[in-house]
Amino acid sequence: MKKPLVGVLGGMGPLATVDFLGKLIEETPAEIDQEHVPVVVWSVPQLPDRQKALDEAGESPLPALIEGIDRLTDAGATRIVVACNTAHAWYDALSARSPVPILHIVDAVVACLKIEVTAPARVGVLATRGTLASGIYQTRLAREGFDGLFNTDEELDALFKPGCYSVKRGEIDAGGRLFERAAAALIDRGATRLILACTEIPIALERIRSRHLPVCIDSNRALAKACVDYWRGATMHSAEKTS
Amino acid sequence: MKKPLVGVLGGMGPLATVDFLGKLIEETPAEIDQEHVPVVVWSVPQLPDRQKALDEAGESPLPALIEGIDRLTDAGATRIVVACNTAHAWYDALSARSPVPILHIVDAVVACLKIEVTAPARVGVLATRGTLASGIYQTRLAREGFDGLFNTDEELDALFKPGCYSVKRGEIDAGGRLFERAAAALIDRGATRLILACTEIPIALERIRSRHLPVCIDSNRALAKACVDYWRGATMHSAEKTS
Repeated sequence: MKKPLVGVLGGMGPLATVDFLGKLIEETPAEIDQEHVPVVVWSVPQLPDRQKALDEAGESPLPALIEGIDRLTDAGATRIVVACNTAHAWYDALSARSPVPILHIVDAVVACLKIEVTAPARVGVLATRGTLASGIYQTRLAREGFDGLFNTDEELDALFKPGCYSVKRGEIDAGGRLFERAAAALIDRGATRLILACTEIPIALERIRSRHLPVCIDSNRALAKACVDYWRGATMHSAEKTS
Repeated sequence: MKKPLVGVLGGMGPLATVDFLGKLIEETPAEIDQEHVPVVVWSVPQLPDRQKALDEAGESPLPALIEGIDRLTDAGATRIVVACNTAHAWYDALSARSPVPILHIVDAVVACLKIEVTAPARVGVLATRGTLASGIYQTRLAREGFDGLFNTDEELDALFKPGCYSVKRGEIDAGGRLFERAAAALIDRGATRLILACTEIPIALERIRSRHLPVCIDSNRALAKACVDYWRGATMHSAEKTS
């Protein structure tokens, strides 16, 4: 049997990948190096902008994403995660290509959400327009009986999108303040939990120590937890096999 | 010509790899995702302990390190960096194996040192016993006319080694306090600069906001700078070729 190895398709952006890898370490109960989840990471940010592609204002990142999947599975990855919510718009195409399962970030988020709240409940989703258009959160929240709340087009243009590009430029405090206003809008409309469905958001909200953090579910951390669950299951399984 | 891609041999430990990747982003002048250095990272911590192997108390990590080099170069890496000082004890064997150059962490550190101080000068090196035994710092500092100062065996046993394993266990504050005492010993003996020659140290000294940080040269950050220099040179070169 192949040794378990998590392949991380990252670089969207590079800081979100580092944030994910840090959370993967935090979520792993480990005393020594050797107990940490083994990963191979493809963080090649030279791919077309995902948000622009979904706005039909730019070329598709799919060929570059497929190259990443191929390199990770060639390197021996036995599971793949994509450390970017927006890129999950191409999940089906990537899954069809990948010889190994891709853990879906929204499945990971919903698993965490269900531990904290029981449906029905109003759940706000902070996400890019592309992620919202792809419907990945709407479908999975509705399936579990949750009532999803989303930013309006105006809020996306004025708050969310500039917040996102601020973080990518390294202006993390400025991004955090914009995201906080987008979060407040959903709380005002009745959300009791907020899903941070773009990997740039937690970095920025943590930086400004946002007052909303206690009700937030961080999609990067949820994905990290799913990797730890996979790794612990796979190593326990292989330990049983060899004992 | 192959597209420039930095291969990072990491996982020694995983947190040091994340620290390196974060510093690579910080050291890159970039406004958008696409301007960041493309990396492929092999962070598989299931390899024998480097310090124990160099103490002749454990098996060699060399086969696992070679596997990492092979996977990174198969994935298309055009340069390799090893995000661990101690593992540079096997640099020559890895270089012989690698089809692409491996940027040496001590060369990167010495390049940064020479910008800050002119030889001769007393330079303290905080490093594992294995790194010290391998002589990688002694040789390169002497070659440039610097006078290297190192912790004694007693300081290594009482301060440095437990500091290192504290960080690996996630007890970062405790590790920082131990490293600070090892640093103070070198300053007391006349060091005007301190090289943090183990990737666990900067994480811990930054956490406790050590008073020695202003005279420290962080080997992880130096290696990140060397990657940025490579990447900028390579992309400028390829832009010239295609124009």
